[in-house]
Amino acid sequence: MIELASFVSGKWVKGKGKAAELVNPSTEEVVATTSTEGIDLGAALEFARERGGPALRAMTFTQRGEMLRAMSRAIHAKRDELIGLAIANGGNTRGDAKFDIDGAIGTLAAYADLAPELGDTHVLADGDGVQLGRGARLFGQHLYLPRTGVAVHVNAFNFPAWGLAEKAATALLAGMPVVSKPATSTALVAHRIVEILVADAVLPEGALSFVCGAPGDLLDRLDGRDVLAFTGSSITAAKLREGKSVVVRATRINVEADSLNAAVLGPDVEVGSDVMHLFIGDVAREITQKTGQKCTAIRRIYVPKERVGEVVELLRERLSAVKVGNPASEEVTMGPVSTAAQLRDLRDGVKKLESCAKVVFGKTSGVDGIGAPAGKGFFVTPVLLQGDDPKAGDAVHEHEVFGPVATVMPYSSPAEAIALVAAGGGGLVTSVYSDDKDFTRTMVLGIAPFHGRLVLGSSKVAGQALPPGMALPQLVHGGPGRAGGGEELGARRGMTFYMQRTALQGDRAVLEALVGKKS
Amino acid sequence: MIELASFVSGKWVKGKGKAAELVNPSTEEVVATTSTEGIDLGAALEFARERGGPALRAMTFTQRGEMLRAMSRAIHAKRDELIGLAIANGGNTRGDAKFDIDGAIGTLAAYADLAPELGDTHVLADGDGVQLGRGARLFGQHLYLPRTGVAVHVNAFNFPAWGLAEKAATALLAGMPVVSKPATSTALVAHRIVEILVADAVLPEGALSFVCGAPGDLLDRLDGRDVLAFTGSSITAAKLREGKSVVVRATRINVEADSLNAAVLGPDVEVGSDVMHLFIGDVAREITQKTGQKCTAIRRIYVPKERVGEVVELLRERLSAVKVGNPASEEVTMGPVSTAAQLRDLRDGVKKLESCAKVVFGKTSGVDGIGAPAGKGFFVTPVLLQGDDPKAGDAVHEHEVFGPVATVMPYSSPAEAIALVAAGGGGLVTSVYSDDKDFTRTMVLGIAPFHGRLVLGSSKVAGQALPPGMALPQLVHGGPGRAGGGEELGARRGMTFYMQRTALQGDRAVLEALVGKKS
Repeated sequence: MIELASFVSGKWVKGKGKAAELVNPSTEEVVATTSTEGIDLGAALEFARERGGPALRAMTFTQRGEMLRAMSRAIHAKRDELIGLAIANGGNTRGDAKFDIDGAIGTLAAYADLAPELGDTHVLADGDGVQLGRGARLFGQHLYLPRTGVAVHVNAFNFPAWGLAEKAATALLAGMPVVSKPATSTALVAHRIVEILVADAVLPEGALSFVCGAPGDLLDRLDGRDVLAFTGSSITAAKLREGKSVVVRATRINVEADSLNAAVLGPDVEVGSDVMHLFIGDVAREITQKTGQKCTAIRRIYVPKERVGEVVELLRERLSAVKVGNPASEEVTMGPVSTAAQLRDLRDGVKKLESCAKVVFGKTSGVDGIGAPAGKGFFVTPVLLQGDDPKAGDAVHEHEVFGPVATVMPYSSPAEAIALVAAGGGGLVTSVYSDDKDFTRTMVLGIAPFHGRLVLGSSKVAGQALPPGMALPQLVHGGPGRAGGGEELGARRGMTFYMQRTALQGDRAVLEALVGKKS
Repeated sequence: MIELASFVSGKWVKGKGKAAELVNPSTEEVVATTSTEGIDLGAALEFARERGGPALRAMTFTQRGEMLRAMSRAIHAKRDELIGLAIANGGNTRGDAKFDIDGAIGTLAAYADLAPELGDTHVLADGDGVQLGRGARLFGQHLYLPRTGVAVHVNAFNFPAWGLAEKAATALLAGMPVVSKPATSTALVAHRIVEILVADAVLPEGALSFVCGAPGDLLDRLDGRDVLAFTGSSITAAKLREGKSVVVRATRINVEADSLNAAVLGPDVEVGSDVMHLFIGDVAREITQKTGQKCTAIRRIYVPKERVGEVVELLRERLSAVKVGNPASEEVTMGPVSTAAQLRDLRDGVKKLESCAKVVFGKTSGVDGIGAPAGKGFFVTPVLLQGDDPKAGDAVHEHEVFGPVATVMPYSSPAEAIALVAAGGGGLVTSVYSDDKDFTRTMVLGIAPFHGRLVLGSSKVAGQALPPGMALPQLVHGGPGRAGGGEELGARRGMTFYMQRTALQGDRAVLEALVGKKS
């Protein structure tokens, strides 16, 4: 049995007491155990603040970018091994595993690429200076400097590699040391990544720590210098928001929670067109990729009333080609969900959706996985529902089923489509498919305030479009309301969470020297 | 007796039941009463969302700017009347009242001036577009649109005019309707301002509501579309942060709390110099203006060890000229604190500070105010303390006395000065006085991460410097940690709190048309 360790205060340490078990969701075999009991997490935070912080702040953006490049390369060098671990511990197909691990490699590389733009300096100017008084001398200038605390990252089970890397890339380039806590159930990949980075010594001491298992009192020990970034369920998000560090000490918090992402088909899109092909391809991929366990996956599909039948037929055709099973078998195209608890929640969730929609494809029990031991594994097929009259407040607009489950629903006008999308209460991403620019514009202006990202599919970009479920380092990832109200990535936008913006007022020449501008 | 009303759902409404009393802090006479009991605050929020929001969103930035200009002018036209109310209900001197009321007029005008830059449009582009794929067609572009909920503003007692106006200016220009709740104890000025704005009909229906008294269930009725901006004590801030709207529904919250703002005198500054003059003037003003009841007031004064005696002497000289009393008397230069509770807290607070410092000027009891009835009024003199060996964790670094109270302390090196300033745990503003550019640079890089704003005083700007206690519309106002972790103002920076940033990905031409750019 592999016993995982935490990397804190510059050392690998194993916890004591009862350990949590990590299983292979295809076979239900235990693949590793881990515990954090007895590990001094207060000392771990202090080590990060006192050793990692100063080391990172002494580096320029350029140097931090080189560090991210080295991290990206180190992970890339072990890509195949990591893919194997993701198949065994995450129920990932090879494609799913690549999506996660290449996402990690790519995001680190993207932030490494961003570094030279920021300069060989320690200070990030925010906008131009402004004259404050009547004379030309008295000026104001905003700048960003890294916060002097520690960044604690609490990641979700579905992206052990990408989740760790995208948060770490942003924080480290900003100049803040990171304590990363993976979801325990799928921690094997994240654990191996940290092993690789520690072995390659690509980071200064204290810049990256890793807490593998229960967080203990980690979060209650944060203060006003520190930040907490969380990805996961809205229930855990609410618990973190009312933690005493956040409430009393103003520890900065960013939440990225699951949401009811939508896809909207424009009234102009006909069966057989490039845009319809793009739409069906996106929806089918978002249902099945990572077995639907993505915070960005499409849950609600809005289709012009008269096309619901056609769309359901096209999706059933796609979904019936999916081969469910143990992704260790090459023919399998969709693995199990990650844990027994996920499976339970999924079954309950589909029942909730059935209050306002009917299942038109798939099943959630009695599914035997290809290449899995008989009766073992957390398998379901893709599940498509159809709702004929969904209203705000109905289950499909309130309840997220975190698995390969989505619901097709009709709309009659752009105004109705906007109201229905908005009824989801805030989302990470919605995609709109149309070649009608007026329709697209109306939808964007109507639904953008409820979203962190909108993907606009049209025939002009059909050949090169990126899937809505893929968070990009250049664009913000996060969303209001149900999606948690947070923001990550977006090139330098995501870095500002890890920095303090300060307005300076004084002599223009002094301010310009501070931010490296010439008068 | 004046009975105040709330302006909600487009109407003035008086509450029932037991009313709260507003007093004249110089005479302890009741000047007005108010209650919100029985007022339907849920309907008030819905009216703002359903009527005010769409009306504001239909206006372009240019039109919203014209609205702010009209608000600024309407208030300016009643300036003298408002000053009178501030003297009677706030204990303000005429100068204090002008600082608040002119701040309101000026901030509305500054945001009116900003509007034309934003354009005669409804969409605010965020940065340039970026190419996402290999082809030139697939692009990403960020934009901001107003959030579709309501902005609730909970203001502090010390700035009834400016607090209302600075928050409203930012929200309204962004396109969000406002529900403003003043601190009850000094609500007379805010109440009159809303009366003036309603009478002049300068705002569309539902754009500005006013809840005059206890907030009832107002805050628990907010959801993920709404925002809550608060200025006040850290204790109330903590309560608001753990409210269920914030915790469960991701209502966006911004907090601006009191902080232990510092002033640091550089080792190069000699008695008799312009910079020393600026320093002493700033410190004395920040102690006495508004009777020290400003979130930006200087509480901690760090001076090179060898100059502590001289600085204390210069400050005692200034402070002994202060004339405390009822500001209805023209000779009075400092009024009472605002309420009996403030006076109690101030007396307790000075006792706490005496655990690490001694009072070298002033007293907090037995002070008879000029022109006040014998034994009446919440009067204290300015109080200066001197601490000879203040350490992190000592009262002077932990406890804010919200009144005309500050402590002079020594430092021996820039590193020590940085550590001591940082020991305040995050502040709104600190000022540094020096002509030594290396000292200034070292201080800025060391303390900026703990502050929202730094004021750099030097001989080059001594003649035109703006006081550190004055928040400027062009620069962010807020600070990390103890200061609440928020950000207001800063020109368009403060507007983004009221808007949702959304990343769009799709056909470059479509995106550029959406944000009004030409390909």
